Amino acid sequence: MGSENPPQLPVNQAPGPALPAMFTRYKDLVEQELSHAVPQPELPDLSELAVVFKYHLGWVDPTGNPAVTPTAQGKALRPTLCLFACEALAGDLRHAVSAAAALELIHNFSLIHDDIQDQDRERRHQPTVWSLWGMPKALVSGDAMQSLGDLALLSVAGRGVPAATAVQVSRILTESYLEMIEGQCLDLGFESSASTTTAEYLHMIACKTGALIRSSLEIGAALATDDATTTRAFASFGGYLGRAFQIRDDYLGIWGDQGTTGKSTDSDIRRRKKSFPVVFALERSSGGSREDLLRIYSQETLADADVARVLSILEEVGAPEHADRLTQESAEQARQSLAGVSLPGWARAEVEELVDFLARRQY
Amino acid sequence: MGSENPPQLPVNQAPGPALPAMFTRYKDLVEQELSHAVPQPELPDLSELAVVFKYHLGWVDPTGNPAVTPTAQGKALRPTLCLFACEALAGDLRHAVSAAAALELIHNFSLIHDDIQDQDRERRHQPTVWSLWGMPKALVSGDAMQSLGDLALLSVAGRGVPAATAVQVSRILTESYLEMIEGQCLDLGFESSASTTTAEYLHMIACKTGALIRSSLEIGAALATDDATTTRAFASFGGYLGRAFQIRDDYLGIWGDQGTTGKSTDSDIRRRKKSFPVVFALERSSGGSREDLLRIYSQETLADADVARVLSILEEVGAPEHADRLTQESAEQARQSLAGVSLPGWARAEVEELVDFLARRQY
Repeated sequence: MGSENPPQLPVNQAPGPALPAMFTRYKDLVEQELSHAVPQPELPDLSELAVVFKYHLGWVDPTGNPAVTPTAQGKALRPTLCLFACEALAGDLRHAVSAAAALELIHNFSLIHDDIQDQDRERRHQPTVWSLWGMPKALVSGDAMQSLGDLALLSVAGRGVPAATAVQVSRILTESYLEMIEGQCLDLGFESSASTTTAEYLHMIACKTGALIRSSLEIGAALATDDATTTRAFASFGGYLGRAFQIRDDYLGIWGDQGTTGKSTDSDIRRRKKSFPVVFALERSSGGSREDLLRIYSQETLADADVARVLSILEEVGAPEHADRLTQESAEQARQSLAGVSLPGWARAEVEELVDFLARRQY
Repeated sequence: MGSENPPQLPVNQAPGPALPAMFTRYKDLVEQELSHAVPQPELPDLSELAVVFKYHLGWVDPTGNPAVTPTAQGKALRPTLCLFACEALAGDLRHAVSAAAALELIHNFSLIHDDIQDQDRERRHQPTVWSLWGMPKALVSGDAMQSLGDLALLSVAGRGVPAATAVQVSRILTESYLEMIEGQCLDLGFESSASTTTAEYLHMIACKTGALIRSSLEIGAALATDDATTTRAFASFGGYLGRAFQIRDDYLGIWGDQGTTGKSTDSDIRRRKKSFPVVFALERSSGGSREDLLRIYSQETLADADVARVLSILEEVGAPEHADRLTQESAEQARQSLAGVSLPGWARAEVEELVDFLARRQY
């Protein structure tokens, strides 16, 4: 249901920074490695699920024919971060490619299960897996994709990485996935609570989104160096980057351009999603505004007037400016995390480009 | 809905063999290790899910109070097999306890997801996780339990097991889990097919049930010895044992005593489950019997008379005798798999006891 009004963009109305070069540089490598991992011919016969995997990854349509426009493909953020960390630390990229594929598989598995949990019928302009193939098959496809991811990560041991490092990165990935689950549990709890604080919300997204972004950089670093301080610095970088990324995502979910984000402009509000701007408004608003927010968010469905009222309350309390300020602060903390790490000039420049992109992107 | 008639037990009417001593011997060790793994205090805060885990494992009731009667606890078959293989090969049991806990967690995670998929409201006389806490929480609890299992297995590397062996057993477990998924997919397909052959059914259960039983023994062996031939022999032993176990399970699901199996006597038929005896009957029956079977299995619900008719067709084609014969053949093949492995006398005797129990048990 398209709005007659142009999307509102009170902050960052510029077209926004371009996709950093590292995404283009690693794209083919990631796709090639993923196509090996899904499905793996020496593994049990998952051919029945292959089309589900490939569809969810944006490669084919639901009938198995190549996707005409790859609109459903993501940016491969996590694999890119992993490969960048490895290369920036002069590591061997061949050691990190399986890990990169593993991270993309784990991320995508979690999306398949998230969509079931949230009963979301659409993601990236496309019908979700459960809405096409039903819940049982979506559930099992997600489980299988997780295991393919685990195997891809363990396979670094056969590619010249010491077995002890393979165990270490497998632990990092699995623990970060458990953090994602902690985040999901907190998120489910927040849906039914009107008193979630911004601090609680930030902890939730540090788990739900931040953990895997952090571990992508941590794993890439661990595959390049045995220096624990450096690996920790990349982990910290990832933690702040993840926060900047998610708050920006929440911003775009309300004030972004639907043509570029793949979400309808007001969908986060219409779906009564308690993203950062709304949590902030619930915390800051009072009187009639707060009552209106609570009333509207307790309704089953929202009319256009309800959405408009929520938008005006968010503006009233300065939610867009606050979200943007927090994004830029987190971006700065991300930069600072790597200040003490010795990096070549090209890598330092790409850190800047990456942080700037994630904190200011328009999609 | 209890039947007025006593349960029909046309074969093996004796009380059946007692639980082998190895189950008692390893029980405390497994429980102790599991209680460390669920939840792990150094891990993300999964406290919200802890009661779900403990309930599903049969330790507490849904409110978190200790379970009065541990009816919901399983036999811990997979951990027991893993520890037995390790001890029989003179391995250090301390190396295998985390693996044993991991196997129980992976098995139980798969049950939580299976119950969601099949919409089963009861397991082991107790309400299932999704029926108590809803599908989203059950889904995420299963995902978390799988990751706790993965971490438990990786943790063998910190207990004196070489990292390369930790990677090896993690691969075995993950690959066997993918086989379980292959089995689940095949099983879902069989539900809507009237032409499943017994050969196809046996392949399906080799994946769905057999893979994890096989890998339990394979992992226990791999943790005790570097000799690949011995590890393969234990894997083969597990494969046949798994078949004997599942065919016996299918038998008991129809002709077992509901008081001991935890299933209502005719539930597998009433639920129109295509277990081995039914697949066999669909393959062997003809004329009116086959038509009746197909008609009854195409109904939404079954009346008592339908259940009785199915039972009589199964008897007519000799399904109980055939199921029992196949169980005993598989038991013999299991014994043969270990014939070439050098084992101490006590272990050889316990292999006999184990095979006999799984193939002749009444519950």
